Amino acid sequence: MEKIFVNKMEQAEWNQHTKERVARGANPDLRWCYLVDSTKNSSHGISVGCLIIPVEDELPLHTHAPQEVYLIKSGSGRLLMPNGKSRSVSESDCVYIPNNEKHGLRNTGDTPLEVIWIFPTDCWKDVEYIYSDV
Amino acid sequence: MEKIFVNKMEQAEWNQHTKERVARGANPDLRWCYLVDSTKNSSHGISVGCLIIPVEDELPLHTHAPQEVYLIKSGSGRLLMPNGKSRSVSESDCVYIPNNEKHGLRNTGDTPLEVIWIFPTDCWKDVEYIYSDV
Repeated sequence: MEKIFVNKMEQAEWNQHTKERVARGANPDLRWCYLVDSTKNSSHGISVGCLIIPVEDELPLHTHAPQEVYLIKSGSGRLLMPNGKSRSVSESDCVYIPNNEKHGLRNTGDTPLEVIWIFPTDCWKDVEYIYSDV
Repeated sequence: MEKIFVNKMEQAEWNQHTKERVARGANPDLRWCYLVDSTKNSSHGISVGCLIIPVEDELPLHTHAPQEVYLIKSGSGRLLMPNGKSRSVSESDCVYIPNNEKHGLRNTGDTPLEVIWIFPTDCWKDVEYIYSDV
């Protein structure tokens, strides 16, 4: 049975991509933690986590079936879009990404870019990332 | 057709409860904006907004059918739970609230308590709030 829970970001475990994912185009320097995720918690239907992109680094262009929301927690960068387009994003901005829409995120500021991701899925594992350049 | 969009919180329109909702127990001093919401944007399946609870004020105990996630954006308070229980919450905390679970939020700090809400619904209007004390 599900119960209310509170996850504190400063107590979260931080993750990095496996070698297998890096071989498929994922960035080995990204770090992230799960804040609401059915693989860690008793929850369903919403999954939330925080991704940290180092200065001058990026989450490359990719797609996935579910729609997604980004909340910029701190830092600033460019939201990467198809056909070389991009938009600037900064703290407190909220981004909606439709299903299967190509997108990425580049840190163009001088501090780590911290982004909250939200999926309408039970967990992050349910989201298959497809990187464009591989 | 849905497209990527960016909503900036500082450009958002702020709302307060209607007299009708206040008569049903809603707090007239709360303010909120919609960040992703199908009534304002071309989006679906995730709805996100920001609620501001003034100092010493609260979002009273209530329930709704969908599960919900709170992200504490700034400030500190108590997460209200059934049977008089509560838990302290502060900046960067992430709260999961199961379907139909009674909850509320009280600002116990000395600055406005800013909370991001997330529902797996198209919009906030799809969520029927049931207040416990009315």
